[in-house]
Formats: sequence, C-alpha cells, structure tokens
Amino acid sequence: MKIEKVGIVGLGTVGTGTLKILINEREKIHQKTGVWIDVKKACDLNIEREFDFDVDRSIFTNNYNELIEDDEISIIVELIGGYTIAKDIIIKALKAGKNVVTANKALIAKYSKELFAIANSNGTKIYYEASVGGGIPIITPLQESLAGNNILSIKGIINGTANYILTEMTEKNIEFEKVLKKAQELGYAEADPTFDIEGIDTAHKITILASLAYGGYVDFEKVGVKGITSITGEDIKFANDLGYNIKLLATAKKYEDEEIEVRVQPTLISQKEILSNVNDVYNAIEVIGDYVGKTMFYGKGAGMEPTGSAVVADVIKLATEDLANNIPKGNYYYNINKELSLRALEKSISKYYIRLNVKDEIGTLAFVTNKFKDNNISIESMIQTCKSFDDNKFVSLIFITHDVLEADLKKSLDEIYISENVNVEKSILLKIDE
Amino acid sequence: MKIEKVGIVGLGTVGTGTLKILINEREKIHQKTGVWIDVKKACDLNIEREFDFDVDRSIFTNNYNELIEDDEISIIVELIGGYTIAKDIIIKALKAGKNVVTANKALIAKYSKELFAIANSNGTKIYYEASVGGGIPIITPLQESLAGNNILSIKGIINGTANYILTEMTEKNIEFEKVLKKAQELGYAEADPTFDIEGIDTAHKITILASLAYGGYVDFEKVGVKGITSITGEDIKFANDLGYNIKLLATAKKYEDEEIEVRVQPTLISQKEILSNVNDVYNAIEVIGDYVGKTMFYGKGAGMEPTGSAVVADVIKLATEDLANNIPKGNYYYNINKELSLRALEKSISKYYIRLNVKDEIGTLAFVTNKFKDNNISIESMIQTCKSFDDNKFVSLIFITHDVLEADLKKSLDEIYISENVNVEKSILLKIDE
Repeated sequence: MKIEKVGIVGLGTVGTGTLKILINEREKIHQKTGVWIDVKKACDLNIEREFDFDVDRSIFTNNYNELIEDDEISIIVELIGGYTIAKDIIIKALKAGKNVVTANKALIAKYSKELFAIANSNGTKIYYEASVGGGIPIITPLQESLAGNNILSIKGIINGTANYILTEMTEKNIEFEKVLKKAQELGYAEADPTFDIEGIDTAHKITILASLAYGGYVDFEKVGVKGITSITGEDIKFANDLGYNIKLLATAKKYEDEEIEVRVQPTLISQKEILSNVNDVYNAIEVIGDYVGKTMFYGKGAGMEPTGSAVVADVIKLATEDLANNIPKGNYYYNINKELSLRALEKSISKYYIRLNVKDEIGTLAFVTNKFKDNNISIESMIQTCKSFDDNKFVSLIFITHDVLEADLKKSLDEIYISENVNVEKSILLKIDE
Repeated sequence: MKIEKVGIVGLGTVGTGTLKILINEREKIHQKTGVWIDVKKACDLNIEREFDFDVDRSIFTNNYNELIEDDEISIIVELIGGYTIAKDIIIKALKAGKNVVTANKALIAKYSKELFAIANSNGTKIYYEASVGGGIPIITPLQESLAGNNILSIKGIINGTANYILTEMTEKNIEFEKVLKKAQELGYAEADPTFDIEGIDTAHKITILASLAYGGYVDFEKVGVKGITSITGEDIKFANDLGYNIKLLATAKKYEDEEIEVRVQPTLISQKEILSNVNDVYNAIEVIGDYVGKTMFYGKGAGMEPTGSAVVADVIKLATEDLANNIPKGNYYYNINKELSLRALEKSISKYYIRLNVKDEIGTLAFVTNKFKDNNISIESMIQTCKSFDDNKFVSLIFITHDVLEADLKKSLDEIYISENVNVEKSILLKIDE
C-alpha cells in the first residue's frame, strides 16, 4: 500500500479547489490508482477561513518551511502565484528533494530555465498542467499523446477574463469599460485586470505551449503582445457583419526556416471556425500536428475546481509514476470484475422529434394527438407539411415534444403505429439534445 | 541508450500510417523521449505493396508467428481489426510476454474481460488509445488528466463515416442513399458500411469510454443502438429550421442510483452547441466531470496518419514507462538549453481589419487609400460609417485587406498616422484568421 504525503502552499481559489478534491475524492483516487494521497499540511497566511468541505484543521500552518522541512512530504503544491515568494518556495522544495506541482504560468514562462535546471540537478520534478487552460488537459496530451507529431501550429483562446469581456461585448452590445466593471463585480476579473486584458497572462501561457511544442524555450520577453482594451463595440459589430467574431488569440507557428512566430493579439476569426464560438470563460486550444491534423481541446480555463482538477492530475501523475512497472499506467484498464448496471433506455427523459408519415384524411391528426394526450406526451410544437412528392395521399406530421418519459413515448407510438393511416416504415423518432 | 523493438501486424490504412510515423520520426522521437523505437518486423498477407516512404523491405513477413517468437520484440502492434485472427494474435503476444498496442475497438468492446485478464496474468499490458476517436487523445486524458473527477456524462460524435454522411445531407441537401454512394467512392465509407451507418462502430467506442469512466465494464450487447439509415432530407430540413443539426450521438451518463445509461442514436443537437458544429469526418467527445466541468476533445476520428499518431503515442508510452523514475514523464520539460529563434512579427502575412478614426473632410479617403497603394496594401472591402456619436467631425473608415505583409502594413499606417486628420488613439488594427 503506497501513501503519498502532499503539502499545499497557498489556499486561494485554486488551492482551495485542490484541497477539496484531494480530501473529498481520496477514496476514489485510491480505487483508481492504488495510491493513497494525503494532504499532510496546507499553508496560507490566513488559516482561519471556513471551507465548504470537511477538513482536519490541524493540517493548517502559516509557515511554509514546515512543509519543506517535513521529510514525509514528497510533493509540494505551489498555488500562491506570482514571481517572488512562490519562486523561493519552489526552489527550496526542489532542493529539499521534493517534487513540485504548480499552476504558476508567470513563473514557468519567465523562469523555466532556472527552475528546470534546479529540478534536474536535484533529481526532482516540476509539473505544471494547470498553468495553461485551467482544467483542460493540454500539456500531457501535447507532450504524450501527440509525441509522434511535429507541431505545425497552436492557436489558443486561453484567458477566460478577456474572452468573457469580448463575449459580453458581442452578445449584449456593451462597451469594454462597462463589461470590465461587471466582470470585476462577478469575480471574473481581478481588481487590477492588467495581466488579463493586456494579454500578458495569455502570453505566459503561449510561451509555455510553444516551448513544449518546438523543442526549446521561448524567451517570454520577446513575445509580441497586444491586449483588448482598444476594441470598441463598433469593431465587434462590423466584424460580426462581415462573418467574424473578435477573440484574444495566442498563436505559435513554425516556419520552414525553423523560425517560430509567437504572438498574442485580438483577432477576427471566421464564425465558421469552432474557435470563433468558444465563449464566456471557456478556453480552447487548437493544435495542428503533421500526422494527427487538427485537434482541439476545450474546457473551463480557470476557476477553483477546474484548475484544481488539473493540479490533482499532476499530483496523481507524480504519485503513480514509480508504480509504472507494476500496473498499467493511469489505470488504462477498466475493472473487468464489475459489470456496470445499465439503465433501461425507457427510463430516460428527453425532448423528442417525431415525424409521422400519415394518410391525409379527416381525423388522423385528432387520432394521433389523442394518443399522445392519453400517454402524457406533451407537445411543444407541431408542423403539418404539404403532400409528399412520392405519394400524394400521405403527408408528414412533425412534432417536437416537451421533456417526456421514453417509456410513455414508446407506448404512444405503439398505439399510433397500429393505425392503417400511419406508414410506420416512413416515420421516425429522434432524441433532442439541447 | 534504450532500444525498443516493435512488431506490427496488419499493414492496412492504420498499419501503414503507424509504420510511416515510426520510420520517418525515429530521430525526433528519440530526441523527445530518449528511446530508439525500431520496427523490427511488419506482417501482412500482401508484402509486395509500395509505400510512399523509405522502408527496409527485409522487415516484412507474412507469418505473424515470426513476430511473436522473436525475443527481441517487446511490443506487438495489432492493426488487423475484427474479432477473429486479431484476437488470437493479441492473446499469443500477451502470453509470450509482449506488450500490445491495438486500434481494434470491436475487440476491446467485446472481449476486454478476457483480454485484460490474460494481460494481467502474464504481467503484460494492452493499450488502445487509437480505438476511440482516431487521432484525438481521449483515453489518456480521460484516465489520467481527469483522474480526480467523477465523470457525470460523455457525449461523442465518434464515427467519421456517419458524420460525413449527415454533414453532406445537411449542407448539400442530398438524400442518404446518394451520399452513402459518394462516401464509398471517396473511401470514407466501406463497401459494407453496416458497422458505420447502423451505429455499431459507435457503440463499440462508447462501450470502451463508459467502461473507463465508470469503473467497471459495460456489456456491449446491452447498449442501445440506432443508426442513421432512416433519416431523410426532410428531417434534416425541419431540424435545421428549428435550430438543430442531426448527429449520430453516443452518450453515457451516470444516474444518482448508480445506473449507467449508454446509447447510440441520431439526435437533434442545438446549433448553439459546439458538438452540433462538428462536421465531415471530424469527431468530438464531450466529457463532463464534477470538478473540471465541461471539456471537449476534437480532431480527426479516422484515417491513416491521425490514427497512426494515436498508435505511436501508445508505443511511446510503453517504451518510456520504465524510464519514469529517471526522466520527467513524457518529456514534461522543454529543452532549456536551446532558445528558440523567434520570427519577427513584421514577416507575418495575413488579412487585416483596420478601423481609422478620421476627420470627415474632402481628400482624407484619397490620402489613406494612396498610402495603402504606395505600400502594396491591397484592400478587399471598405466601409465608411456615419459620423461618430461623440465627435461629429469624425467618422470611421473600415478596411478589410487581402493577405498583406505586416511590415508593409505597419509602414503604411505610420505614414497615415502622421496626418492631423487621423485620430490615432481611436484607430485600431486587428488580424483576421479565417
């Protein structure tokens, strides 16, 4: 039985999410991986806060050295953010022989050279899946799943705040300053929103992705960066009229001469592209590889639990790596000793689309609608088409239902299909997913 | 220096793609992972075929036992497909102490219980990333990156043939039979398309994903399956009019009573959903986790190179797993010894959106357009707005350029911005990405 002791430094949004998942899902993670992951200590300046989950308060401390000096702790999770004290803590942890997990994109983008070298020379590791795309798995897929590919380009909408602002400006026709204020009230933007709206946070993230993709490191200071502050409602309106949406887009691209172009700027993206329809606080990263073609990874780019989910993935990765020889990596198999109990489809509740091919005779519509009524099938809308081309005695009746029980619907259709006026072969029932 | 010897059985579409990547990218994969992966033998009934890449023909054999009996080969890649001989080969390989990589979803969906048990009892592994979603990384992200989550639901468009047919029916208003014929001519559908159009292939794949997500196995025979053969152009038209697209959707969902609903059926999906806009041979899988929220994985669901890319990822995974203690897994670090050469942004070529805030005076438009002309800036379209609200002496001139060199554009704008008639502060330049 393997037990991995973890220390978390920083209990802000992401730290709290990480702590919550590690505590609440301890048993599940053990089932999946065979490892018990215990948070032994958690450090924050304010350790008096309340949490919406049960936590043994004896783990809290406001002295991070307690975590670094604890020989039982093998993984330090740094979730303070920023350049200064976070960097000191990571370096101390690596030098103390501990592996590190962080969501700190600013630090990785600016100091990867220094930090990776310290990790290497101490035989320790630093993982940072949560630094880009919040909860979206991107670093592991890019490095492992696309390992056979040469990456041709990366395009990303990777700042939730900027994307929320642009989405609101687009959908509600509000000017930048007003939306920013609303975003701050809702907690989607910070009191000092500079990093988000000026593209700096986005630049940190594309610096990391480009470095991983192109087998070297990108000097963050040289990345071309432009933010969204000068975009007006007029620009958005004209862009929309011309078939585009405006997004803060990070791009990295390799040219034939091996030069890499890395930039962040507001960009008009054709509305036909999926990237153009990534809205609100969602992020998406499109990666084009020479063999795999176009792939895209989409999800919530920030927030307590999504980002915590990515931090936990790295913790699990570290905790299970030295088990790799014994068990299939990452529980690649499913549990063949337990057959899952499949739910009867009749219990499902959904909206449905029904097309009935019926004889164009008086009373048919009444017959059908009565059968629906008898079986609790509530109809949202109905269309009767003109006569069919192939048989002018038949017409299509199209119904959209409200949410109904599939068993009820099947029963009503069984009763309807008995009628000689209904051509069952040419009728159809389709689920609606909204 | 680690060398991993691989044997490939089956040189059809995916087998050829896999062989091509392993041969052409051998050096790159070594750089990334530290392992040399050598294809020692490749088996197919027809070994006389020509390939569009260089290959040492002495590796070919038509006797798969040669691979199984070769003690140097540690990984067998099974790419024959189907239930019969492929299964025998995998079992023999596992019993011979070899790890197996396969893209065979039918086999994994139906015989996981038997195959995983044999792998376990022989201390060998069987990996199958390529079995679902072709080149899209989904099995590794689902199992590793979302490991801290309870999976609430999975929705997938995971059959390229069915999705191509429905997309063509939607966009070109053609009936099912005609599109199927065209798909067969283009090689997007097989001579016997039953598995694809009746939803069976999709059911194999959702069986695998549901089993992985819910900690047990799903009996494939119990999955509810309905194909797309009875969908008419009329259904598609009405669905579109009502704001939906019709897709062959696979779903897996966990209910509060722990029952799992797994089904495959044509479904109307709201056009506002990204899934609804996954077209042609593309696949997408939406996974909702309790912490991460909604995530989506998108890419090419089939084809020689995309699927080969996923097979190669599994081969690399196996080849590097026992290195896990020595190097960061999957090359998690980038190369801090090599600064990447960043391309000057001025060398970039793109379409642009330009909004100039200009004094509404005779000659301004001519001045601006001449500057564009002088600098090789070709204009695709131009709009002049009514007067601004805030200053009625100024108007907006909006230009969409053709592809232009960024250096030329910057120069033209520098020349334009000198003019007193242009309010630089209120003007903007945005890239266009189509």
